[in-house]
Amino acid sequence: MEILEKHLVVFTPSGKRGHFPAGTSLLDAGRSLGVDIDSVCGGRGICGRCQVRLVEGEFAKHGVKSTKSGLSTFAKGEVKYRERRGLAENRRLSCHTKLLGDVVIDVPASSQVHSQVVVKTADNRKIEMDPAIRLHFITVQEPDMHNPTGDFERVAQALEQQWGLLELECDLRTLQKLQKALRLGKWEITVAIHRDLRITAVWPGFHDKAYGIAVDVGSTTIAMHLCELFSGDVVATSGLMNPQIRYGEDLMSRVSYVMMNPGGEVVLTDAVRKGINKLIKAVSDMANIDPDHILNAVFVGNPIMHHLILGIDPTELGGAPFALTTNSGMTLWASEIDLISNPDGRAYFLPCIAGHVGADTTAVILSEAPHLQERITLIVDVGTNAELVLGNNERLLAASSPTGPAFEGAQIACGQRAAPGAIERVRIDPITKKARFQVIGSALWSDEEGFSEATKKSGVTGICGSGIIEALAEMYLAGILTTDGVIDGSLADTCPYIIPTDRTFAYVMLDNEENPIRVYQTDVRAIQLAKAALYAGAKLLMDRLGVDAVDRILLTGAFGSHIDPKYAMILGMIPDCDLDDVNAIGNAASTGARIALLNKNARDEAEELVKRVEKVETAVEPTFQQYFIEAMALPHKTADFENLKKIVDLPKPSTATIVDGSGRRRRRRAK
Amino acid sequence: MEILEKHLVVFTPSGKRGHFPAGTSLLDAGRSLGVDIDSVCGGRGICGRCQVRLVEGEFAKHGVKSTKSGLSTFAKGEVKYRERRGLAENRRLSCHTKLLGDVVIDVPASSQVHSQVVVKTADNRKIEMDPAIRLHFITVQEPDMHNPTGDFERVAQALEQQWGLLELECDLRTLQKLQKALRLGKWEITVAIHRDLRITAVWPGFHDKAYGIAVDVGSTTIAMHLCELFSGDVVATSGLMNPQIRYGEDLMSRVSYVMMNPGGEVVLTDAVRKGINKLIKAVSDMANIDPDHILNAVFVGNPIMHHLILGIDPTELGGAPFALTTNSGMTLWASEIDLISNPDGRAYFLPCIAGHVGADTTAVILSEAPHLQERITLIVDVGTNAELVLGNNERLLAASSPTGPAFEGAQIACGQRAAPGAIERVRIDPITKKARFQVIGSALWSDEEGFSEATKKSGVTGICGSGIIEALAEMYLAGILTTDGVIDGSLADTCPYIIPTDRTFAYVMLDNEENPIRVYQTDVRAIQLAKAALYAGAKLLMDRLGVDAVDRILLTGAFGSHIDPKYAMILGMIPDCDLDDVNAIGNAASTGARIALLNKNARDEAEELVKRVEKVETAVEPTFQQYFIEAMALPHKTADFENLKKIVDLPKPSTATIVDGSGRRRRRRAK
Repeated sequence: MEILEKHLVVFTPSGKRGHFPAGTSLLDAGRSLGVDIDSVCGGRGICGRCQVRLVEGEFAKHGVKSTKSGLSTFAKGEVKYRERRGLAENRRLSCHTKLLGDVVIDVPASSQVHSQVVVKTADNRKIEMDPAIRLHFITVQEPDMHNPTGDFERVAQALEQQWGLLELECDLRTLQKLQKALRLGKWEITVAIHRDLRITAVWPGFHDKAYGIAVDVGSTTIAMHLCELFSGDVVATSGLMNPQIRYGEDLMSRVSYVMMNPGGEVVLTDAVRKGINKLIKAVSDMANIDPDHILNAVFVGNPIMHHLILGIDPTELGGAPFALTTNSGMTLWASEIDLISNPDGRAYFLPCIAGHVGADTTAVILSEAPHLQERITLIVDVGTNAELVLGNNERLLAASSPTGPAFEGAQIACGQRAAPGAIERVRIDPITKKARFQVIGSALWSDEEGFSEATKKSGVTGICGSGIIEALAEMYLAGILTTDGVIDGSLADTCPYIIPTDRTFAYVMLDNEENPIRVYQTDVRAIQLAKAALYAGAKLLMDRLGVDAVDRILLTGAFGSHIDPKYAMILGMIPDCDLDDVNAIGNAASTGARIALLNKNARDEAEELVKRVEKVETAVEPTFQQYFIEAMALPHKTADFENLKKIVDLPKPSTATIVDGSGRRRRRRAK
Repeated sequence: MEILEKHLVVFTPSGKRGHFPAGTSLLDAGRSLGVDIDSVCGGRGICGRCQVRLVEGEFAKHGVKSTKSGLSTFAKGEVKYRERRGLAENRRLSCHTKLLGDVVIDVPASSQVHSQVVVKTADNRKIEMDPAIRLHFITVQEPDMHNPTGDFERVAQALEQQWGLLELECDLRTLQKLQKALRLGKWEITVAIHRDLRITAVWPGFHDKAYGIAVDVGSTTIAMHLCELFSGDVVATSGLMNPQIRYGEDLMSRVSYVMMNPGGEVVLTDAVRKGINKLIKAVSDMANIDPDHILNAVFVGNPIMHHLILGIDPTELGGAPFALTTNSGMTLWASEIDLISNPDGRAYFLPCIAGHVGADTTAVILSEAPHLQERITLIVDVGTNAELVLGNNERLLAASSPTGPAFEGAQIACGQRAAPGAIERVRIDPITKKARFQVIGSALWSDEEGFSEATKKSGVTGICGSGIIEALAEMYLAGILTTDGVIDGSLADTCPYIIPTDRTFAYVMLDNEENPIRVYQTDVRAIQLAKAALYAGAKLLMDRLGVDAVDRILLTGAFGSHIDPKYAMILGMIPDCDLDDVNAIGNAASTGARIALLNKNARDEAEELVKRVEKVETAVEPTFQQYFIEAMALPHKTADFENLKKIVDLPKPSTATIVDGSGRRRRRRAK
């Protein structure tokens, strides 16, 4: 009896170890130990995903003297791979390398199926790669007249034998391509498989191009990330204005469009789908890939966008009781929503939470994971609407607040959408009351040299959302605005920047004859209404949760992520909180969509979460009205902004009030 | 404590019985006993499907004195139903009728969910109704702002509570219609559910129109049954010529068309789908229904038709190894194959067995169920190709035989497809050798008075498949044809119906100057080749099964079902068998499709069966060639047709032979 020599192999970073007969391939050894080593080609030396590295000289740590002699020399297939695709110094294909002595083998992150990707969230979370669509290379048995099984059945058999995948189904469109692919590939094909259940694409021979898109469809803009599905890398990002905008600036005007125009929902669905396809084309061009290689898409959006992409009439969302058609996650064929990606690719829609709280909020939760923390997080997503999420690992609450579109620059006299030329940062000299500012598209302040030159192309066209927030906060800090939100007319006589207009006063930010930029009393009122709604919503959720304060605040959304947290707090948009714990985190909805794209379990997690989230409907809460009225004033009037007082020198409350028009006029005349 | 009075109720025909508190509805009582009582509306007195009948005066049999007083009088809802939709004498709605005394209640077949339908097969099988699509009427909870679940989720909840259906999914197209249907129906809707898994259609309020189609797609003709899905009744039947015929008469010429014309498979797929849609329109018009109410379709066809309807290139089926794309059953959306029925309706394709043995053969097995019998059945399906099934409840074998298209009238000088004007029945006087015949479209024989008048419109245009079989068999019985299949030229001198042609002889059936109808020696040869292939195939299967004889033979297929079994046996198309056990059974494939339409478990049964069937590829069997050559002669030459000899007076073997052309000429000249 021959006794087969056995050798010890230790895999890092997992630390898994075992003894194997001489001649065992490193891939087989690793797999039998449950080491996470990737492979698309199933050990045929084609894909190069199973690369490992010999850790030489390791002794002390693992009790193994690891040297080159512990491994077989380069096999023919490995040499061929190196010549064809290159192999870095001291990298080996684990499928072609055999164990000949004790060794320590490192599996680099790029060779792990479930490698981790760092995602840009407030906590820079690590996401485990586990996409819904995976590619598998297989060798299929040729047909045999004596055993006349179908080509598909032999493909399924190969997937069972070579990948352990059972009871697979196949899309018709893929079936239509299967026979040609098998014969072109000489009985070797690569298939894409969705959630280990269904074959969704086929290519002759070896194929390793698999991409996905994460799409955040906002009412104003659509943002798309193109991701490589193995590595999770974002290979292209693009965005465009939602083409629906020509049918209405905000969500409600689009619902009105549908209600007023029979078939309007079809027009809006077409428009948004066309926009999405334009972006698919754009990101594919940027990354130089064929859109056909996009095999998976994840969509997030507010309920109305969610419904319109799906071709569902959003009318019900336009009025109470704001009934969603569905609050479940949905998986569809890309072709069902006319995507120009692979027609059999899958499109996944994260679930909406309530009629006002959409899949974008679900994505925000997925991204920032307040449910995984003990600390109480308040997430404020301010776009055209504002959604609020509050809670921790015990409870999670969500609501939307009727802020209206003021934060987007609408209903503001000199307001405009965030675009080059819009004022986004403002500072006001407390003595002279003169404003200086930055506009989108230039890093220079308006009082710096070269500003005119730098903004020549765009000009200074208006104030965007974050600009108006800073303007009001700075006006308040400079004593121009009272805690009640009144532009102090008594300054008009001494200060050229305060001017009477009609029955009230305005603050002049830029005295430009053609396009003077001013903040009117009505503008202050519009922002007050919006910020009061936001604050009242947060307060209502805090009440429900039974807390007086939150541990951290995250600002997100098209607008939210551009606000300077300090100014948001001065204005009282958000509750008092240590400013170090208030962060603008960028587009978290888009990040959540990317997480759902890269990790299929995140989808299941989101669907479970959505059921657990306690939905609060602000419109029907009596206390909301009370909080709303209370929140109209600037916050430190109610003296609960302790943290804020630590960092800014708040002016003393002034007493100026707006009286009715005639009263005001009388007082001015009396002077 | 109040003691509730209990009463005995006995249900017939099930015999189930139990005691229930006074006031229990008959539907509830029946359901709790497991009595099969149908209901679409869930006991709301709308659908009328739960009708039962009081069996009065029953005492002896069931020990119950059953009288009208044992039941509550007509309730309001029942009266309303009777006024609206009518209620037959002594019928009651079991959902609205309450138990007040001991009663015997009969549940008529029409009120049973799983009622039995007799299907026209050789054994007139009873099929239990259990369609894949069922309708359910539900009352859905209205949306509530405080508990913002989606409309779909509340529908799913209603289906769980009211019908016990769990974890339902929903097609996007149905989701798009859901909200409007709920509001139009005032929170009452009817949904169609496929296999208790997925909602595939929705209607506001109560809806009870559910139809299905069973479609047999042959290379020559397409046949369609429109069935009512509750009762199983065939409400319309229609057929048309397969529009693909313009691209090739038989299957192989269509595969050639695809091979010669790039994109030809798309042309053929379009053609056959258009034909199917034309039939859907036709049967819908006949039954006066909206095609949108067709919720399910079952397709059967040979492998090439199966592939072409599915849009799969059939090229691989045109040559060895004749690989199918799939040999599994398939469920698709009707829209995936462009059907004009309900777009979310489901289309089911029965599985093919092998590259030459299609889903039509699977359907034939499903219809005739040889696998449920101890007797050994041989099924012969003769259309453009011939498929054979042999076996019993132990083993089942299948093969196809390369008969060529002679049986369809092709390759026969005066042959034609079965159509008005074609000779289908032939008798030859053994003394005068004069033929008389019947043509399709008339019941008169050619020697009967009025024949010319009756066939004036069509004329006598040629001989169809069954006609040529009878002609040859009768020629043989009349001594015109030898056992070797030679037209006996020695008769030419004395008989005007035997005439020399070129190098051989022909038999004149109709001496019409414009269009004389003759049987030429080449015609005899063509049929000999075809019938020898058929017989050799049967013999091969019998060899494999290890039997010398079969217990019964079923003839089916477009052509097979029109053959007179006697003549088929005289000619030696089929093995010897007691003629009483040889039956032409009509279009069994179409019946099998209907069974799969009416009973979803039959689909699963078929899929299991197909795996069990032993596939025999005649082309690669050496013994097939031998059997084929042996079978060229007329059968009793080999003396194994004992049963045949009992019923027909077979002539003595003659000795005439065909010699080569020159020899024949010499002999004739020598006379």
